Amino acid sequence: MEPRIGFVTLAVDDLERSLTFYRDGLGWASNGIVGAEFHDEVTGADGTIAFVTLGEGGLMIGLYGAGDLARDAQVAPVPATTGRHSIGVMVGSRDEADALLERAAAAGARIPAPAHLRPFGVYSGYFGDPDGHLWEVAYDSGDR
Amino acid sequence: MEPRIGFVTLAVDDLERSLTFYRDGLGWASNGIVGAEFHDEVTGADGTIAFVTLGEGGLMIGLYGAGDLARDAQVAPVPATTGRHSIGVMVGSRDEADALLERAAAAGARIPAPAHLRPFGVYSGYFGDPDGHLWEVAYDSGDR
Repeated sequence: MEPRIGFVTLAVDDLERSLTFYRDGLGWASNGIVGAEFHDEVTGADGTIAFVTLGEGGLMIGLYGAGDLARDAQVAPVPATTGRHSIGVMVGSRDEADALLERAAAAGARIPAPAHLRPFGVYSGYFGDPDGHLWEVAYDSGDR
Repeated sequence: MEPRIGFVTLAVDDLERSLTFYRDGLGWASNGIVGAEFHDEVTGADGTIAFVTLGEGGLMIGLYGAGDLARDAQVAPVPATTGRHSIGVMVGSRDEADALLERAAAAGARIPAPAHLRPFGVYSGYFGDPDGHLWEVAYDSGDR
């Protein structure tokens, strides 16, 4: 098979808090916290994780304890930070972009950058999840 | 339209270096550096970016200067860090996982965690790109 990107793992400091944000706040699909029965003897990482998805067949977002991700990848644990990555959500109109940003704000997200029209024709803004992971909500007008 | 995840933006400290790593080192598709003609007067961000994709119709990875991403999202610039997020690439076998990790290493990636079989039946390992962004290369055996 051709390699394909199947998931993005986000390190979180409080798994319940993050699941509440994405599932209850944003309304994204999730089967809740799973994998607690798995422990990796090689790395010391626990398997406890929650996946959320945005739409059928969409990319899976894995919400995974920061300590477990560090152990799983065998890197030093580091504190949460904001601004070195962002996940882009495409929506169908400016109103949909504004509505998703408003919903995120109502769920407790920080909105560092309200949506505006960028010079390449994309109307977008950003929200930060409870750990500061950035999401860009974008409508592409196609007008370059 | 239903919202869908369309891209992931990775902040990079040297756009040419990152493009070389992904396009020439990993062999992923890219049209090179684009958007240099765009400057956003609202945020001060330049549009200069490179997109790489893994497979037809796959998720776009935007390689974007760290200063520009910080300006675009209107957050404070922060130095590169490793371990708070990871992008997962699904491959079709253990051998394919090992081969992609080896290719990444040959392209200059750090390999903090060589692949091994995890207790939930996934054989995976991690590499870090030139800015420390983690990638997990994973084969799911389906054996739980």
